[in-house]
Amino acid sequence: MGFLDILGILAGLFTSSSIIPQITKTIKRKKANDVSIFMFVVLSTGNALWIYYGAEKSDMPIIATNLLALGLNVVMMVLKFRFREKENAGTGYKYDNNAGGNIW
Amino acid sequence: MGFLDILGILAGLFTSSSIIPQITKTIKRKKANDVSIFMFVVLSTGNALWIYYGAEKSDMPIIATNLLALGLNVVMMVLKFRFREKENAGTGYKYDNNAGGNIW
Repeated sequence: MGFLDILGILAGLFTSSSIIPQITKTIKRKKANDVSIFMFVVLSTGNALWIYYGAEKSDMPIIATNLLALGLNVVMMVLKFRFREKENAGTGYKYDNNAGGNIW
Repeated sequence: MGFLDILGILAGLFTSSSIIPQITKTIKRKKANDVSIFMFVVLSTGNALWIYYGAEKSDMPIIATNLLALGLNVVMMVLKFRFREKENAGTGYKYDNNAGGNIW
């Protein structure tokens, strides 16, 4: 493995693993209201195209790191979906029996 | 420009422009509390390394699209910084004269 392969793998590890801090933050906060789901949909499409590009060019770092990124993107999209019901948490007007006023 | 160049540029446009929905959402909501700043720091480092990799391999699609991504990442980091003071908006205990109890 030459210098270029190592450089490519390093570059790909950074861009792929960049999603990890977002995954960690989402798990901690149990919400991702400010996070755009479209970002991860578009990113995954891009990763899939990079894998195709890497395969055509027999470029191993591109293939490997985009596969990793794709996997992490799927994890983030599942988290965003799982925590979607927190979107309006804290308002609680409709179903909160402890709300200040009488609902009638 | 061959098929591979077009494929690479397309792949890179997807991964780079994936940040645009996040930028749009942040501008609309005027907050990005759930967004991890570390994601964009690590991503930018990766983009810089990809530009180096692309330059070494004379791979134009990699260079061009990572330059674009780097620019968009900087925009997102500026937005995250600009809207940082909204982190605790809505609690307002300390300075809210309309808070229920007497502060003394």
